[in-house]
Amino acid sequence: MKFSVTILGSSAGVPTLSRSLPAQVVQFNERLFLIDCGEGTQVQMQKFGIKPHRISHIFISHLHGDHYLGLAGLLSSMNLQGRTQPLSLFAPYSLAEVLTLQFRSMGVVLRFPLHFFPLPMEQPAVIFEDDLLLVRCFPLVHLLPTVGFLFQEKPRERNLIKERLPKDMPFALLKALKRGENVTWQDTFYHAEEVTLPPPLPRSYAYCSDTLYHEPLAKDLQGVNLLYHEATFQEALADHALKTTHSTARQAAMLALKAQAKKLIIGHFSARYKDVSPLLTEARAVFLATEAVEDGAVFEIA
Amino acid sequence: MKFSVTILGSSAGVPTLSRSLPAQVVQFNERLFLIDCGEGTQVQMQKFGIKPHRISHIFISHLHGDHYLGLAGLLSSMNLQGRTQPLSLFAPYSLAEVLTLQFRSMGVVLRFPLHFFPLPMEQPAVIFEDDLLLVRCFPLVHLLPTVGFLFQEKPRERNLIKERLPKDMPFALLKALKRGENVTWQDTFYHAEEVTLPPPLPRSYAYCSDTLYHEPLAKDLQGVNLLYHEATFQEALADHALKTTHSTARQAAMLALKAQAKKLIIGHFSARYKDVSPLLTEARAVFLATEAVEDGAVFEIA
Repeated sequence: MKFSVTILGSSAGVPTLSRSLPAQVVQFNERLFLIDCGEGTQVQMQKFGIKPHRISHIFISHLHGDHYLGLAGLLSSMNLQGRTQPLSLFAPYSLAEVLTLQFRSMGVVLRFPLHFFPLPMEQPAVIFEDDLLLVRCFPLVHLLPTVGFLFQEKPRERNLIKERLPKDMPFALLKALKRGENVTWQDTFYHAEEVTLPPPLPRSYAYCSDTLYHEPLAKDLQGVNLLYHEATFQEALADHALKTTHSTARQAAMLALKAQAKKLIIGHFSARYKDVSPLLTEARAVFLATEAVEDGAVFEIA
Repeated sequence: MKFSVTILGSSAGVPTLSRSLPAQVVQFNERLFLIDCGEGTQVQMQKFGIKPHRISHIFISHLHGDHYLGLAGLLSSMNLQGRTQPLSLFAPYSLAEVLTLQFRSMGVVLRFPLHFFPLPMEQPAVIFEDDLLLVRCFPLVHLLPTVGFLFQEKPRERNLIKERLPKDMPFALLKALKRGENVTWQDTFYHAEEVTLPPPLPRSYAYCSDTLYHEPLAKDLQGVNLLYHEATFQEALADHALKTTHSTARQAAMLALKAQAKKLIIGHFSARYKDVSPLLTEARAVFLATEAVEDGAVFEIA
């Protein structure tokens, strides 16, 4: 089952010619989730082949402009392009007021349902759930109220070993075996562990931007497969990171290490860094399985 | 004296990979004026070498999103980059409310003075004047209240023919000659027309976007040196242009013809046109001195 993230923007605060403002698309199965929507996101989608009409959910981490100022334009364009299918928007509650006023002044009447869900900013919460996936938000530590997002695949069913099962076993019993339950059929006992294989381990992806280094996060994100953590500054600017409530690349790596993440990707780079390899070096010194993102990069979650 | 316009965005409604949303910069002498500020304008400025700190005035024609959604991001970036010099913003009055709410939700406190001037949307008015330049706004005909802008160089002084003047003539008399006044000095009469050359004719630039074809404009813009007129659609979509209160390329050319413009540039092309040469052909059939703009194009006003 497809589970990937496409980076649309990896600059912090101010866009550059090579890095747009924060936005990324998580694809899970056939579903696309947009996380943050900095100015320029709709053009980045065109550039990297993301169809806006396929986005079903948008999550906005916080209301600093670099994380949401592309939203009104994206929604207007969806409208102009004839979108009719509903869109769910999860964001800090005051965004509703901003968008409402913008659309009123623009004379825009959306022709598709936009369902607005104010995000709980103070404690972790499940904000999306279906048969296959859970999405949680959790508070980060930033100048404005800010949340991160954790995408968790649900445990999948065990896989049947068909050679070890009679062809005529009823579907209900097969389903029970897949759930790991033992069954009896025509006087034979079938031990689930003997006639099925365990499913792949559930995968997870966490988005942490913008935030101070915040060690308690490591517990909530324990064992995460892929961790995106902001790394706005080099360690030499650790004081400035603290002052502006951002993290250094080294701090991002420390969190990955403590969370026992399988892999770390760092982004949200200050526009002062034309070359981010020094940040990558600082992170890898702490956590080797680190990559620095570029706009357009796609990471499979595995 | 430098008088030019740089096109930052030439798409209508929705950006494309080759055309950003409406924005252009008029340079007059050392001063830069930004007209409209669609999403992506700050990146276009980087791309085409326009320094945001040099912009002293911003004029927003109307509040459709494609003409102003880049503004909050541009102002935030100016702030982040340490701007301290004042900025004058001329826009429909309700933009003040939108920006105020956006900045409040973003926690942004501008560290430079932003002077907001609500534009008169119903009748022509002078909105800027200094020794060298006048800027007027005038109503266009569009779905939302919309204005165009006319930049008019003021008549310049006559040029002295030094060989025909005594070296010791006082400065005040020279100034009088430059103004075209005749003077007497040491019993000699100097006829201004004999000892000075006429100045270059004052130049002008008009920006008309978005608007229906509106013939009365031709009178106000009579003899304009350079006319930018929107040309959203081909003539085959004239009905659609009427319905959406836009112009066809042919209508833009008709206005240039009736205004006896020296040159016409067309833009604000619907994103459906990957190739705008058919629009250019339609316009040139009516007004030969027409060019279709591209992002990054610079036009000298002469």
